[in-house]
Amino acid sequence: MAEIDRMLEANKAWAAQFPGSKPVRPARKVAVVACMDSRIPLFGVLGLEIGDAHVIRNAGGVITEDTIRSLTLSQHALGTREIVLVHHTECGLQTTDDVSFADKVEAATGRRPPWAARTFTDVDDDVRESIRLIKESPYLLSHEVRGTVYDVDTGLLREITDRGPAA
Amino acid sequence: MAEIDRMLEANKAWAAQFPGSKPVRPARKVAVVACMDSRIPLFGVLGLEIGDAHVIRNAGGVITEDTIRSLTLSQHALGTREIVLVHHTECGLQTTDDVSFADKVEAATGRRPPWAARTFTDVDDDVRESIRLIKESPYLLSHEVRGTVYDVDTGLLREITDRGPAA
Repeated sequence: MAEIDRMLEANKAWAAQFPGSKPVRPARKVAVVACMDSRIPLFGVLGLEIGDAHVIRNAGGVITEDTIRSLTLSQHALGTREIVLVHHTECGLQTTDDVSFADKVEAATGRRPPWAARTFTDVDDDVRESIRLIKESPYLLSHEVRGTVYDVDTGLLREITDRGPAA
Repeated sequence: MAEIDRMLEANKAWAAQFPGSKPVRPARKVAVVACMDSRIPLFGVLGLEIGDAHVIRNAGGVITEDTIRSLTLSQHALGTREIVLVHHTECGLQTTDDVSFADKVEAATGRRPPWAARTFTDVDDDVRESIRLIKESPYLLSHEVRGTVYDVDTGLLREITDRGPAA
């Protein structure tokens, strides 16, 4: 059975105990930007309820043009005003670098990606870089942003500040 | 209290009952691409366990260069081979259009975004467009993709096929 068939089957159980509809505008006026990593169930990790917050996720949880597009829609069209970043320990993007990854894709497919993989070495620095990119964006209504690193071995979030890890 | 402070507090309860660590490679070899909408808790909706699947989310759940970057990393670096799309009913992107949204951002910030908001009118067509863009990408190892629409009022997923809604 394809994985999607398992998911469609599991969805019937979800719908059978569906908790009810909610408004389209996030109740807590927050957008979360997080890595796509499979070990971060954000609703549980952050204590979110259905309808609370937008959830934007990509490889690394990095700030790209598409992240800014999503945040701009989140704020201008749907009323969010805070941004929370969730990067994490043991990220797959720390196990390669942009050139090696492009080499790997080219060797396997015959095509070299024109975009960078956005690998990184220091996760705290990567959170600070994301904070900087959000603060610099001219399209957002609110630049209120704070960043965290999720420890995939303990489940704990650690806040990152401009000066270094929070006390 | 800022929303992130509430989240950091809630995270302590999560970590206190943390279910344990998992490998970085998704166990079910799936990447899910979904809309950022606040009403879609994907782990519950799809019956996912921690460590099962990558989760990529943006405004609309659309396929952009950043989505392809994330999927390429998911497949080449972390071994996924299936892609599942989750769009949904009552999407915020159906309430505006690209020109009106750019006008709105320009009026509020003085800057007109150089990127399109990627609004749409028919959600089934938007899923089919996402399937087409994934199948055309030269960077992926697997183009095995299926698409769904999540009903935010019932919790049910409906699969979309190339021919129209699945029976």
